[in-house]
Amino acid sequence: MIDASFLPELKIRWQTIQAALRKNGADAILITTNVNAFYVSGHVFKGFAYIPASGDPLFFVRRPVGVQGDMVVHIQRPADIPAYFHAHEIAVPKILMLESDAISYTEYTQYQSLFGTPETLNGSALMRGVRSIKSSFEIDQLRISGQKHAQTYRQIPSVYRPGMTDTDLSIEIERLLRLNGSLGLFRIAGSSMEIFMGSLIAGENADNPSPYDFAMGGSGLNPSLPVGSNGTPLTEGISIMVDMGGNFTGYMTDMTRVFSVGRLTDRAYRAHQTALDIQRAITEAAQPGTPVADFYHMAVEMAQKAGLSDYFMGHRQKAGFIGHGVGIEINEAPVVAPRSKETLEKGMVIALEPKFVLPGIGAVGIENTFVVTDKGLEKITVLEEGIIDLA
Amino acid sequence: MIDASFLPELKIRWQTIQAALRKNGADAILITTNVNAFYVSGHVFKGFAYIPASGDPLFFVRRPVGVQGDMVVHIQRPADIPAYFHAHEIAVPKILMLESDAISYTEYTQYQSLFGTPETLNGSALMRGVRSIKSSFEIDQLRISGQKHAQTYRQIPSVYRPGMTDTDLSIEIERLLRLNGSLGLFRIAGSSMEIFMGSLIAGENADNPSPYDFAMGGSGLNPSLPVGSNGTPLTEGISIMVDMGGNFTGYMTDMTRVFSVGRLTDRAYRAHQTALDIQRAITEAAQPGTPVADFYHMAVEMAQKAGLSDYFMGHRQKAGFIGHGVGIEINEAPVVAPRSKETLEKGMVIALEPKFVLPGIGAVGIENTFVVTDKGLEKITVLEEGIIDLA
Repeated sequence: MIDASFLPELKIRWQTIQAALRKNGADAILITTNVNAFYVSGHVFKGFAYIPASGDPLFFVRRPVGVQGDMVVHIQRPADIPAYFHAHEIAVPKILMLESDAISYTEYTQYQSLFGTPETLNGSALMRGVRSIKSSFEIDQLRISGQKHAQTYRQIPSVYRPGMTDTDLSIEIERLLRLNGSLGLFRIAGSSMEIFMGSLIAGENADNPSPYDFAMGGSGLNPSLPVGSNGTPLTEGISIMVDMGGNFTGYMTDMTRVFSVGRLTDRAYRAHQTALDIQRAITEAAQPGTPVADFYHMAVEMAQKAGLSDYFMGHRQKAGFIGHGVGIEINEAPVVAPRSKETLEKGMVIALEPKFVLPGIGAVGIENTFVVTDKGLEKITVLEEGIIDLA
Repeated sequence: MIDASFLPELKIRWQTIQAALRKNGADAILITTNVNAFYVSGHVFKGFAYIPASGDPLFFVRRPVGVQGDMVVHIQRPADIPAYFHAHEIAVPKILMLESDAISYTEYTQYQSLFGTPETLNGSALMRGVRSIKSSFEIDQLRISGQKHAQTYRQIPSVYRPGMTDTDLSIEIERLLRLNGSLGLFRIAGSSMEIFMGSLIAGENADNPSPYDFAMGGSGLNPSLPVGSNGTPLTEGISIMVDMGGNFTGYMTDMTRVFSVGRLTDRAYRAHQTALDIQRAITEAAQPGTPVADFYHMAVEMAQKAGLSDYFMGHRQKAGFIGHGVGIEINEAPVVAPRSKETLEKGMVIALEPKFVLPGIGAVGIENTFVVTDKGLEKITVLEEGIIDLA
C-alpha cells in the first residue's frame, strides 16, 4: 500500500507529525479519517494509521482486502490493534492523540479504550497545523488543480446559451470540470458545511442567506441543500458569480470569476475593481511572517474607504473571513479572519476572496489560490479577472 | 422557518421522536446534524433543534440570519441556549440525548456541558429508528426521486458514443441527472464512506476492491477517492454497471442497471438472471413482519444453488449486505445483512441490490428501491431490468 517511490515524501510528513507529537508531549496519534489517512499514506483506506512519536508508523487496514507491504497489518476489527501490539511487544501509548474534531463521540470512546486508559489529546489541531504547510509535491498537485481550474473557467463562455438559468449554466460548468479531470468530490472539514461541486449565484439570489459558513450564500434548489443557484434566469443587468471547487488531484483549489450578460451598472464595476484592489494590496503586502489577520483588516479598511462596507463579504448576512487555506479540504488552516493567530509561512496555500453583494445586481469580486513562497504570494489560478461578458 | 403548511407533517415526526424519548427514559434530544435538522424542521439550518419528551420543540438558529417564527430563537453561540432556558424558566434536561454517532467528540463534550452535567445517551440510534419509517409525505418525495431516477437511466443510451471510457459515460449520466433535477449531493451516514454522484464500473475494474462499504468497488481515478470508474474503455464483451444516487428531492433513491456494447457471454446473462430471480423471490416473500435477515439468507442460498457463491456481492472483496434503507441518506436503517435484527415494517423504504462480479466480464445484477406497503414491496424505480445493449 505504501508505494516505494512515494516513501521519501511520506517520511517527511511522518517526521513533521512526530516532531509535533513530541512538542505536545504525546506518545502517538491514531488516525482514522479519510483525509488524514490519505495524507499519511497516499491512499484513502478504511482502518487506522498509528504514528508513534518516534519509529515507523503502522497501518492497520480493514479495507480494501489484500493490501500488503512493510508497516501494513491487515485487521478485521479495531480490537485486532491492541492484540497486535501485545503479540509484538510494542508498548501501548500513555498519551494518545485522536482526531477529536473529526471522529464521532462513539468512535472516540471506542478507540480510546483500545489501549487501556491512556490520556487522550486532541490531534485534529495538530494535523491541521502540519497540513497547513504543503510540501513541494503537494504544491505541485495544487498547481495542476489550479491550471485545470483556470482552463475550465476559460471555457465557460463556450457553454453559455441565451435563456439559461443559473442552474443550467452550473450544470455545464460541472461537466467541463469533470471532462477536464475533476474528481467531483468537494471535501470540507467539519460536518456542518455541505455543497455539491461549488456555487453559482446570479442576481438577487446572492443576497439570500445560507446556513453554511461559505463566503457567499444563495438559496439553492431545495431546503435540504440551501446554497447556490436557485433557478434564476440569466438576464441582462445581473452579475453571475462562479465559485466552484477544483478537485483534480485530491488537492482542491478555489477560484471565483464574475460573468454578465451584457453590461452591468458602473457601480458593479467599481465594487469589482475594489475587490481587485484589495487582492493587489494584500499580495503586495504579503510575505512570510505577516500575520494573516492583517489581510482581513486591510480588506475591511479598503472596503470602508470605498464606501462599500455594507456590502463587503455579504449584505443581509456577512462572512467573517476573506480567505482560507486549501489543500485536501477546501477549508484548511489558516483562516484569514480578524482573530486568526497564524502568520503567513512558506508552503502555505491560501485562497483570498474579497467579494461584495450589491442589492439589485448580485455578487462581484474575485477569488484566487496562492502559494506562499519566500518572496510572497504566487497566484496559481491565473485567468482574466475583470467581469466577463457572456453576451 | 417552520412553514405553517408543513406543520402537521412535522408534528407527527416530533410526536414519534417524543414517544421514543419517553420509551428510552430521556428528557430531551439536542439535534445539530444537517440531516436530522432537515428531518425535524424541513430545512437545513446551522444551530440546534431541542426536542423535549413532551411539549413543543425549540429551534436555536445560528445561520441563516433573519429567520423568525414560533419556536425559533436566534442565537449567536451555543452558550445562548442555556441562557435562554434560564431566562424563560425552562427546566434543563437531566437525561439528554445527543447524536453520538454523528457529531465529533469535541462537539459532544461541548454540548453536554451546556446543561450542567446531564446524563447523556446516544440519540443517533433513536433517530435512525424513527427515520426508518417514512411518512406519506416522505414516500411521495422518494417516489418523485424514483421516477426521475428511472427517467434518467432511460436516457442513458442516448448519451453513449463509441470510444467512450467509463468516466466519459459517467460524466454524461451525471449531467442527465442534474438536468432532470438532481441536487447532486450524495448524503451518506458516517464519515468513512465518500463518493461523488455514484459509481459506474466497467469490466475488470468491478473486481478492484475499494476501501468503502459500498456493495461494489472499482479503483477510481485517484487514490484520494478509490471507488468507481477508472478510465476503462467501453469495449465489447464487458459489463457496464451504472449505480448512481437519485437525490432529486432531498430524499435519495438507489438504482442499478447493467449495460453492454454488443453481446456478453451467456454466463453474464445467466448470472444477471439469477440476480433478477433473487429480487423476485424476495419481493414475493416480503411482507410487514418478515425479518430482513431472511432476505439476505434467501439471496445467499439462491446464489449458491446457481453455483455463483464465489461471485455474489463481489469476488476479491465481498459486501456483507444485499440491501439497505434509503431516505435523506443513502444508507439508512434497516441494513439487509445476516445479523440484522429488524423486521420489515410498513413505511420502510429499502434498496435491494443482488449483484455478481464475474472475472473477465465485470459486474452484473440489479438494484431497485422499494416502499414497504401493507401488501409487501412496491418498486419505485421502474425500468427495464435486462442487460441493455448500447451498440
